[in-house]
Amino acid sequence: MKVKVGIVGASGYTGAELIRILLRHRFVELVFLSSRTLVGQPVAKVFPEFPQLKMNFVSTEEISQIVTSNDVDVVFLALPHDAAVEYAKIFYSKSIKVIDLSAAYRFKDKKVFEETYRIQHPYDDVIKESVWGLTELFRDEIKKSKVIGNPGCYPTSISLGLAPLKEIKDKIDLNDIVIDSKSGISGKGKKVSEDSLFVEHNENFYAYGLPYHRHTPEIEQFIKLNFGIETKVTFVPHVVPMDRGIFSAIYLKAEGVSEKKVFDIYRSWYDKEVFVHVVDEIPQTKWVSNTNNCMISVRYIERTGRLIIFSVIDNLVKGASGQAVQNMNVMFGIDEREGLAY
Amino acid sequence: MKVKVGIVGASGYTGAELIRILLRHRFVELVFLSSRTLVGQPVAKVFPEFPQLKMNFVSTEEISQIVTSNDVDVVFLALPHDAAVEYAKIFYSKSIKVIDLSAAYRFKDKKVFEETYRIQHPYDDVIKESVWGLTELFRDEIKKSKVIGNPGCYPTSISLGLAPLKEIKDKIDLNDIVIDSKSGISGKGKKVSEDSLFVEHNENFYAYGLPYHRHTPEIEQFIKLNFGIETKVTFVPHVVPMDRGIFSAIYLKAEGVSEKKVFDIYRSWYDKEVFVHVVDEIPQTKWVSNTNNCMISVRYIERTGRLIIFSVIDNLVKGASGQAVQNMNVMFGIDEREGLAY
Amino acid sequence: MKVKVGIVGASGYTGAELIRILLRHRFVELVFLSSRTLVGQPVAKVFPEFPQLKMNFVSTEEISQIVTSNDVDVVFLALPHDAAVEYAKIFYSKSIKVIDLSAAYRFKDKKVFEETYRIQHPYDDVIKESVWGLTELFRDEIKKSKVIGNPGCYPTSISLGLAPLKEIKDKIDLNDIVIDSKSGISGKGKKVSEDSLFVEHNENFYAYGLPYHRHTPEIEQFIKLNFGIETKVTFVPHVVPMDRGIFSAIYLKAEGVSEKKVFDIYRSWYDKEVFVHVVDEIPQTKWVSNTNNCMISVRYIERTGRLIIFSVIDNLVKGASGQAVQNMNVMFGIDEREGLAY
Amino acid sequence: MKVKVGIVGASGYTGAELIRILLRHRFVELVFLSSRTLVGQPVAKVFPEFPQLKMNFVSTEEISQIVTSNDVDVVFLALPHDAAVEYAKIFYSKSIKVIDLSAAYRFKDKKVFEETYRIQHPYDDVIKESVWGLTELFRDEIKKSKVIGNPGCYPTSISLGLAPLKEIKDKIDLNDIVIDSKSGISGKGKKVSEDSLFVEHNENFYAYGLPYHRHTPEIEQFIKLNFGIETKVTFVPHVVPMDRGIFSAIYLKAEGVSEKKVFDIYRSWYDKEVFVHVVDEIPQTKWVSNTNNCMISVRYIERTGRLIIFSVIDNLVKGASGQAVQNMNVMFGIDEREGLAY
Repeated sequence: MKVKVGIVGASGYTGAELIRILLRHRFVELVFLSSRTLVGQPVAKVFPEFPQLKMNFVSTEEISQIVTSNDVDVVFLALPHDAAVEYAKIFYSKSIKVIDLSAAYRFKDKKVFEETYRIQHPYDDVIKESVWGLTELFRDEIKKSKVIGNPGCYPTSISLGLAPLKEIKDKIDLNDIVIDSKSGISGKGKKVSEDSLFVEHNENFYAYGLPYHRHTPEIEQFIKLNFGIETKVTFVPHVVPMDRGIFSAIYLKAEGVSEKKVFDIYRSWYDKEVFVHVVDEIPQTKWVSNTNNCMISVRYIERTGRLIIFSVIDNLVKGASGQAVQNMNVMFGIDEREGLAY
Repeated sequence: MKVKVGIVGASGYTGAELIRILLRHRFVELVFLSSRTLVGQPVAKVFPEFPQLKMNFVSTEEISQIVTSNDVDVVFLALPHDAAVEYAKIFYSKSIKVIDLSAAYRFKDKKVFEETYRIQHPYDDVIKESVWGLTELFRDEIKKSKVIGNPGCYPTSISLGLAPLKEIKDKIDLNDIVIDSKSGISGKGKKVSEDSLFVEHNENFYAYGLPYHRHTPEIEQFIKLNFGIETKVTFVPHVVPMDRGIFSAIYLKAEGVSEKKVFDIYRSWYDKEVFVHVVDEIPQTKWVSNTNNCMISVRYIERTGRLIIFSVIDNLVKGASGQAVQNMNVMFGIDEREGLAY
Repeated sequence: MKVKVGIVGASGYTGAELIRILLRHRFVELVFLSSRTLVGQPVAKVFPEFPQLKMNFVSTEEISQIVTSNDVDVVFLALPHDAAVEYAKIFYSKSIKVIDLSAAYRFKDKKVFEETYRIQHPYDDVIKESVWGLTELFRDEIKKSKVIGNPGCYPTSISLGLAPLKEIKDKIDLNDIVIDSKSGISGKGKKVSEDSLFVEHNENFYAYGLPYHRHTPEIEQFIKLNFGIETKVTFVPHVVPMDRGIFSAIYLKAEGVSEKKVFDIYRSWYDKEVFVHVVDEIPQTKWVSNTNNCMISVRYIERTGRLIIFSVIDNLVKGASGQAVQNMNVMFGIDEREGLAY
Repeated sequence: MKVKVGIVGASGYTGAELIRILLRHRFVELVFLSSRTLVGQPVAKVFPEFPQLKMNFVSTEEISQIVTSNDVDVVFLALPHDAAVEYAKIFYSKSIKVIDLSAAYRFKDKKVFEETYRIQHPYDDVIKESVWGLTELFRDEIKKSKVIGNPGCYPTSISLGLAPLKEIKDKIDLNDIVIDSKSGISGKGKKVSEDSLFVEHNENFYAYGLPYHRHTPEIEQFIKLNFGIETKVTFVPHVVPMDRGIFSAIYLKAEGVSEKKVFDIYRSWYDKEVFVHVVDEIPQTKWVSNTNNCMISVRYIERTGRLIIFSVIDNLVKGASGQAVQNMNVMFGIDEREGLAY
């Protein structure tokens, strides 16, 4: 038996990545791909990399009205944040499971979402049902949930990097975290603007999003969930002239720890995970390209008392569409690896 | 004494390159930079790479009305083709010299322009005065001219590659020329569209512009000028994921020639030129990056009777702004090398 | 039941790609990975992108001595040409099937190999058994064969692009073919030299391999096989600053044809193929990245009588390791798509 | 009158950049280029980008023996650290000025050099005469010096970024500095190794050099010189898949400061400098490519009390050869800008 899947708003980079993954998934039937702007167009014309996909885009508005839970078991929302607020509600009301790749259902405290994204969010009932979908940490909740707020790309890399520190949280200063992250350009999405042209990014590197990038509160929410404390982090994202990959360097003050001890904790923490790999060498983004893997390494700089966590993912896979499918697998009792390279 | 220069429509990549070159030019005074869309903005805000440039963009429309030949000796037009048709006429009428980087004044037969670019061209008088500005071949005409139609990037690389064959034109088949050219992405200009995003070009290579790229008639006009014959060429341009550079491979049938003989002809033809270098090795685009150089090499494939000419330039320099300044130098009796790397 | 597979000489880019593909293949058991230089090292240390692969490299020399056809059904050889000559013989003598990714078994006329690669080839018996493994054209022979000479990357893209012209071979001039191909840098392999450093290729484009690249006779052998004629082609390869992808533009003189007619022939020829796609738009290398697909389009330039075939593949997949696995699938009666993205 | 210049060990990327700059310098005569491995070869063959340079490489060993201070006024050393120790001594003893691009003369305390680079340094007399050549900060000393230890690329970007904080040093915690720097690949030099191949860097990003990169003590020496305190910094360098550029993000704890106030201090500090630009926007590496500029901006993150300094340079220009020429200009009383883009 196959899971019947719809992709809502499938025209961007995360939509394409979802298609790529689901085409390889043996237990999925792709029921529809919808778009606001591409209605009626053959998918293979919009995405020439999928010549074997014989479907046309349907209207997001129409399909959301006529589809029922008999037609489709789960929808992935690859929509702008404001549209996702609404469509999640619509599909949820039809008892269709929702995996939302936007930020609309990532926050338990809706005020944080509303202030950060400047969008009203009237659906407390759906928020209440939703789970922040970092699979490795919230697998049990995800299994039972009907609405997944799929994590942001930066927060995924950073949260997986920070989580095991729970075991030595008294030895690190959680009030003094500096996170310097770097992302491939696909993280900007397919929005057309002068500063996204090839020539503007090629042979160029820079920081952006200051003083307060929108992923900051998501990271801070994770810290509260994981460590039980409220804190504020300094988070600076940068763009790297490459398609894919996130590299996060997390700087913490630590005392009374040793590099070996921290490695042991990380290895033990992720021992059972198929997608998270603790490695000796500082990981490189290319090592995880096109896979759902996260690779983590640690260094302790004795002379300055700094613990540095390095965490890399592919922003389009573990940072978006791959983790979304991993979550779907969890929700439907399928082997987590199905469809995903690792 | 300094040449007083204005740049009209200075907001694109060729405009930036003009500024870069002219800032280094010891005998130029930059009088104004104009734009339609950026009026009033500091140049250093639009082009942060020129922090020392303390000027604001003026209105193209206004400046063209008020400026006189006392204020400015020459204007560079970095405008869309249709606007260039008009503004060249305006400045020409004021006895201000014009170096037009668009296609508006590249064709002696205005019908070719009108059909290729689908723009009406009413100014036969200006066309009559204009010279197609491939400096190495038309230096004498350029010296006396008031209006330069600065050549296209592809035609520059190809014409310099073909010119010396005039000496053995009876041994090559000019009716059977295949030209396979490859360009860096800056050749597309700064126009914003989905297919110009970083992710669309990075790690990608493709051909475009078929069946009839707009530079084809310019190449054919050159062949007529140089060889005295009317012919049609097969010209296929491609884009390479890099900022700058054009690489043209020109395939010709040839009989009764030797590689050595062709090399001798090329070396002798360009012997006196400072910017054109005939080299043993097949040239690489990076060898001419950020310079006004053109490098050429030849190979004769005996087993198939094919003569191949390889010609490389930097599309923004010798293929556009560099050659424009070279032409200005010629027009004003300045050493051709002034301001230009070589 | 699973096919027991060994990879001999697995330390380069094609070796890594074989591993990547076979890790996803449901009907394969990876029995050994061998290397001359990495004996005893964990595979996951050499290829950090495969953290889940718990094997060490074994010695190529040793394993070739002790292994029997009970242990392994097929070996992939990812070796230098001279070593492949020998090891193919060794495994063949043990009744183990061989898929050789080098040039050693690509030529029916061994003199062509010996002259082109300057290596002696004493094993006529193995050559006699071998098949040139362009799957789409020689599927029946491959099915029965014990030794596959897996085609070169350029010849794969070019042969698939030329094959359907068989149907109109009287209308094209097969004695006047110009092929201008462009390849990503992984095609150079992992050999260390100054001219393969990042800075030497980045922001650079050039031609190489003239006057006579080693893939030329392979292309000419294909033409003889497909069209039944002996001819010589002009073949010029170039390198593009990107990891993967081959783009071939094939220029032919043609009379009495129409673009539509040629499209019809191509579509009909490849109608049943899962990996070859005839597309309206000129294909881009990125459309086939990381897949075993070949995409082909055609243009007929009426004004010059030139037919142009555009053919793109991923050089590491359809151009090497992917096609090798496709051939293995054919040899063992497995669905051709197994393990391969398409 | 021209300064007579020799370049010793001119075959790498900094050597090429020196040539590029000096070819444009109006008051320099290039007397010789030397190399250990390229003796007798035409420079234009090794560096095809300089076709007009009609010189052959001479032997470093020979030229150092025969040359006198009549022949040459200053030599640039672009040598390995150990060779630079020796050759600086040799030329110094001949009363020829030395600008050393290696680390050999960057440290006043020779033990730091000896321990960091594991090279003996017997020449206390030359060290005593030498000046660490960060032009903007040590211009007066440079003017009178005979031996310049040209700063490392990372230390240049970081020191220029930190220097003005001297004015508010009581408000920042100099014992808690985290520096996350990113460099283009040319920073690795031209050394051939598997991990420097195009495919290893392209589409890849990673950190290296931990726990203690060799530029760390140079940064700490600067802090001592500038702030008068001994401290230890956490410095993590990364590589970006691009040719040129360094981007340093410097994280400091600060209290009682405002972003505006810090901007004012920086603007005032660098007011007279032609190459250092304090800019509103976070600077991008491309803004300084191929120039001797350093661009700096600051952000104060109020919610976490973090002051962040962003500083960008071109590692081959201001980070190496450009600053070396700037120092030469200072030493010989030439306008600092001569030969340099800004």
